[in-house]
Amino acid sequence: MHHRTAESAGDGQSTADTSENERTVRRPVVALVGDAPDWLAEAVHAGGGTVGPINEADAAIYRGPTRSLPPLPDSVRWVQLTSAGIEAFLAAGAIDDKRIWTSAAGAYADHVAEHAVALLLTGARGLVTASHQHDWQPATVGTHVGGIVGSTVAVVGAGGIGRRIVELLVPYRVRIVAVTRRGHPVPGADLAVPAAEIDRIWDDVDHVIVAAPATAATRHLIGAAVLARLKPTSWIVNIARGSLVDTDALVDAIEGGRVAGAGLDVTEPEPLPAGHPLWTTPGVLITPHVANPPHLSRQDFARRVSENVARFAAGDDLLGVIDLAAGY
Amino acid sequence: MHHRTAESAGDGQSTADTSENERTVRRPVVALVGDAPDWLAEAVHAGGGTVGPINEADAAIYRGPTRSLPPLPDSVRWVQLTSAGIEAFLAAGAIDDKRIWTSAAGAYADHVAEHAVALLLTGARGLVTASHQHDWQPATVGTHVGGIVGSTVAVVGAGGIGRRIVELLVPYRVRIVAVTRRGHPVPGADLAVPAAEIDRIWDDVDHVIVAAPATAATRHLIGAAVLARLKPTSWIVNIARGSLVDTDALVDAIEGGRVAGAGLDVTEPEPLPAGHPLWTTPGVLITPHVANPPHLSRQDFARRVSENVARFAAGDDLLGVIDLAAGY
Repeated sequence: MHHRTAESAGDGQSTADTSENERTVRRPVVALVGDAPDWLAEAVHAGGGTVGPINEADAAIYRGPTRSLPPLPDSVRWVQLTSAGIEAFLAAGAIDDKRIWTSAAGAYADHVAEHAVALLLTGARGLVTASHQHDWQPATVGTHVGGIVGSTVAVVGAGGIGRRIVELLVPYRVRIVAVTRRGHPVPGADLAVPAAEIDRIWDDVDHVIVAAPATAATRHLIGAAVLARLKPTSWIVNIARGSLVDTDALVDAIEGGRVAGAGLDVTEPEPLPAGHPLWTTPGVLITPHVANPPHLSRQDFARRVSENVARFAAGDDLLGVIDLAAGY
Repeated sequence: MHHRTAESAGDGQSTADTSENERTVRRPVVALVGDAPDWLAEAVHAGGGTVGPINEADAAIYRGPTRSLPPLPDSVRWVQLTSAGIEAFLAAGAIDDKRIWTSAAGAYADHVAEHAVALLLTGARGLVTASHQHDWQPATVGTHVGGIVGSTVAVVGAGGIGRRIVELLVPYRVRIVAVTRRGHPVPGADLAVPAAEIDRIWDDVDHVIVAAPATAATRHLIGAAVLARLKPTSWIVNIARGSLVDTDALVDAIEGGRVAGAGLDVTEPEPLPAGHPLWTTPGVLITPHVANPPHLSRQDFARRVSENVARFAAGDDLLGVIDLAAGY
């Protein structure tokens, strides 16, 4: 099936080089399904692909809600989704085993990890308290300044975002406990613990950053039992999915002084309704799922699309392949 | 003058070792002047000194306001102050040239640098805006999320705090421009610029962290002219001294949309009076000089005292020696 097309023959943008590796390469046809802005077509071209109709496509990029994903012909061998977390597609049965599906896992890691560390520091440095003061009260605000230097921070989940969070935390002189699926070492982390043994970490942990996928196994991972083992100075950060934290238990723990507070970019329920206790619980800072807002995620996603189109053309492994068994 | 005393002879805490370097060593007598809690005496002991009255003292630790510093006998050859910034002592003429004076410069760097990065991230991640929202408004908050990855950050001042800020910023993939007295390279910074040439950096800078001492030369360093050359997305952080930023010019620049906002742990005037425009300028987050609150600074200062007492006993260079000519 050496059907290298005329239009790809002289294309300097292709990352594969048939003259060097003799590998079969052609310019893949990629269909843009759902909401497809111009920059997405440019990203496909930059990766060495062409944009074409779904019935002629080798691959598809789907940008839109789960419910609007149309049936795909079997000739589409790869589908790229725009989100890092794809639990809604899995729950809807939209991800079949007829082709490869990729999420954007890791593509937004720089921004989401930065947001996670920002939320942790905001809590630990008393900035949540300070933001609600409108006069000079060093005694009040100062007692809420704990800092993270010298503390132990648990990073739960060590995918692209979790690993990036660890990288950002390294120079703060914190002890980092990374929780990963199988406990494989994480660069920069002082300790890596397999998810099955997570219960043994909590007595030694000061702060927690939740960066794991939403699965049946991670639902309410941070619940009353874990919160009871943390410290009155502990901050909880969630930039993953709201379902990983038991909201009622969190509000109880903060109001009871068992933990200091929380920085949440994701909530359960989400959107968090006006009047929900979380909005007014002291020590809680909520950002409305904006760790990765559209104006910033665009270039990250475009880069991922270009990279994956180039890999697809070259027959290389794609980034962010969804593991149906693992659920992410 | 080899008068090594009986009580120091068997002291394992002394960092000097006469058997190795033949240097004259004795246990210095340190007077605690002003507010002298027990932990300060413990720090002197830990450094190999004894605590004694001022008239028998080789050295003094002064903890208190400038105005309460008593006259010191000439036999006191070294005075340790508790603050990193000592401009008030200089202005009062309290620092004479009869002995060595040391500030606590660098002793609190871990905490103050952490606070500085927290204030920068809080601004750049839209958290100041988010902290004032009590309902789910991703469009509103999201547009205030810029992040720092890929940006250029100026760190003005590269003493202990400035250098530590650079260390913390390195993994964020920012370009770091350090401004130092003479432009000597700063580990981790992409560029070091001498203070005399600071005017040439502003057109390329996104965010500014002020970490320089308060001197005549740094007064209103961040004023209308600099603010006009920054960007509508720029954040200004000040953890040094309020005098380095022209408050009125800052309020004008933020209200005029010429810069995005500011995170200030120090202000001019300070304390910032209730009703001052800074309290209500959107995009301004104020912490009331708590980057280094008493419950955290205590152990840092104790460590510095022990280290300097040990150095004094050994005849080594002290940390934080005040340079009268430089003014810090």
